[in-house]
Amino acid sequence: MVNRSLTGRRAWVTGGLGFIGSNLALGLLRLGAEVTIVDPCVEGCGGNPANLEPHLGHCRIVGRDIADAETFASELATADLVFNLAGEISHSRSQREPMRDLELNTISQLRFLQVLARVRPGVRVVYAGTRQVYGRAHALPVNEDHPIRPTDYNGVHKRAAENYHLMLSRIGVLDAVVLRLTNTYGPRLALQLPGQGFLSAFLRRALNGERIEVFGDGSQLRDPVHVDDVTDAFIRAALAESPPDRVFNVGGPEALTLLEIARLASLAAGSAGSITCREFPAEHLAFDIGSYQADITRIRAQLGWAPTIEFAVGIRATLNWFEKKLAA
Amino acid sequence: MVNRSLTGRRAWVTGGLGFIGSNLALGLLRLGAEVTIVDPCVEGCGGNPANLEPHLGHCRIVGRDIADAETFASELATADLVFNLAGEISHSRSQREPMRDLELNTISQLRFLQVLARVRPGVRVVYAGTRQVYGRAHALPVNEDHPIRPTDYNGVHKRAAENYHLMLSRIGVLDAVVLRLTNTYGPRLALQLPGQGFLSAFLRRALNGERIEVFGDGSQLRDPVHVDDVTDAFIRAALAESPPDRVFNVGGPEALTLLEIARLASLAAGSAGSITCREFPAEHLAFDIGSYQADITRIRAQLGWAPTIEFAVGIRATLNWFEKKLAA
Repeated sequence: MVNRSLTGRRAWVTGGLGFIGSNLALGLLRLGAEVTIVDPCVEGCGGNPANLEPHLGHCRIVGRDIADAETFASELATADLVFNLAGEISHSRSQREPMRDLELNTISQLRFLQVLARVRPGVRVVYAGTRQVYGRAHALPVNEDHPIRPTDYNGVHKRAAENYHLMLSRIGVLDAVVLRLTNTYGPRLALQLPGQGFLSAFLRRALNGERIEVFGDGSQLRDPVHVDDVTDAFIRAALAESPPDRVFNVGGPEALTLLEIARLASLAAGSAGSITCREFPAEHLAFDIGSYQADITRIRAQLGWAPTIEFAVGIRATLNWFEKKLAA
Repeated sequence: MVNRSLTGRRAWVTGGLGFIGSNLALGLLRLGAEVTIVDPCVEGCGGNPANLEPHLGHCRIVGRDIADAETFASELATADLVFNLAGEISHSRSQREPMRDLELNTISQLRFLQVLARVRPGVRVVYAGTRQVYGRAHALPVNEDHPIRPTDYNGVHKRAAENYHLMLSRIGVLDAVVLRLTNTYGPRLALQLPGQGFLSAFLRRALNGERIEVFGDGSQLRDPVHVDDVTDAFIRAALAESPPDRVFNVGGPEALTLLEIARLASLAAGSAGSITCREFPAEHLAFDIGSYQADITRIRAQLGWAPTIEFAVGIRATLNWFEKKLAA
């Protein structure tokens, strides 16, 4: 983990009441930063003030959409670092409601970045991208030069937002870094919200002692990463001085099959809940990307980051966290 | 040129009253197609019914924005081939009015493609992309695997529209081909409209016997392509059966410096109009891409296309066309 004081640094976190955003906000508070969160808790995007308890009072909360950045432009002008995590992550919902996804992931970002570039030109902004932009990998592990071939609207729109950040940096208006996140898990993962990916569904079922359903034959690979490692990657990306590259994969420490992930989650929950494979629902199959594992050579070399939490350990800690929360 | 009858084929051309669109529409008419044009002549985008004279009466004109495709969905359902050229091409205007550019190049395309995919699933659609998506070339010539690094909003938004077409093809909803066009010239080029690129400005000045202004030292390379060659590329792309790739560069037959292009234009105009180099205006310098030449290996191999019109010949014919038009 980054071991560096951020005392007095004004850090803004868009989407800071969501799963990753709230973990990041708490990490920034621990390092002494002054944290401002922009999050209007858009329905379906996972924003929830409870995620910050009991530290909610230690952050400033701007309950606005990033699209309305004009309304908080003068405060934004004081930002030292911007962590830009606002957005919608559901692939399936983007297929059903592409215009909504475009609004939340692209149009809002354009409005936000235009204000940011005007009031705080040259500021370092770290954008939460997604491995979904690669689509089906032509070989594993996938490095940052893999072709961009998204299989859903969400991937197209998140890629457009990446391109805003990178283009504005190319022309000297912002100083952006893009992290392409793999499947992330940990405390505060939105378990009750649909469309948050298979880890959310697996954990919910494991906690409930229910049977975990795996789509397909369960042999697909994923490299889940713990949110504490992701938080560390965001902070390193924010503090790196002029990294030669501006796009970095953030992946987990190992590639596991969906079946292994389900077994480890079930085991960690202490439940004997069974696991079954079922056919892909048609709406998921269309945009399924097959196996994925990030190549993290670049982020290791340029930001000194590597994931530290093995899935078997991280999933146990995560389930403990949820069990305690449920018992409280 | 493609030598194949399109008799009875219902071809739709969005942006079909613009420079390239109108030339394409006339080419389709010559091959016997039934041509429907969608063009509301959005201010600044070059649409002009005069471009189709004296053949305007031979096309059906739908004077609607592609964003309003719901209003002509039942007619669109009969399309055999869709040539999708609607959009805004001005880089400089996109920097001044990014939201307008987003509307015209991305949001409108999403609305259009959603209707098209519903009423005419699996239809071949050929999208007019741009070499601007590559940004500054890391080496010449630039092939289709060059990284996507646009330097302006227009490039980001045109890329997002490309991605819509390609994503919807990946998931089996459409059957799209994307052409990434280099600087195109020829009859019907919008000479009076600002932001249409240097060829428009050079031709206007050459025709007027005025001094041609070249930004920078004039050593930058471009590979201008004649619109008749571009028309041929669109038609080949529309008729190709299952090409292995779906993105193709469309480039000119030779790379010339801006200074050479200016000299040839001036010479063709028979004017002794001088040429001067001047510093890049700041707003242009920020998104300037340096030298560009397309690698057209892929389109040659898969679509059998190559440019046939040398610039020295094409520019003379183009100037003759404009002179006759002005004299009429």
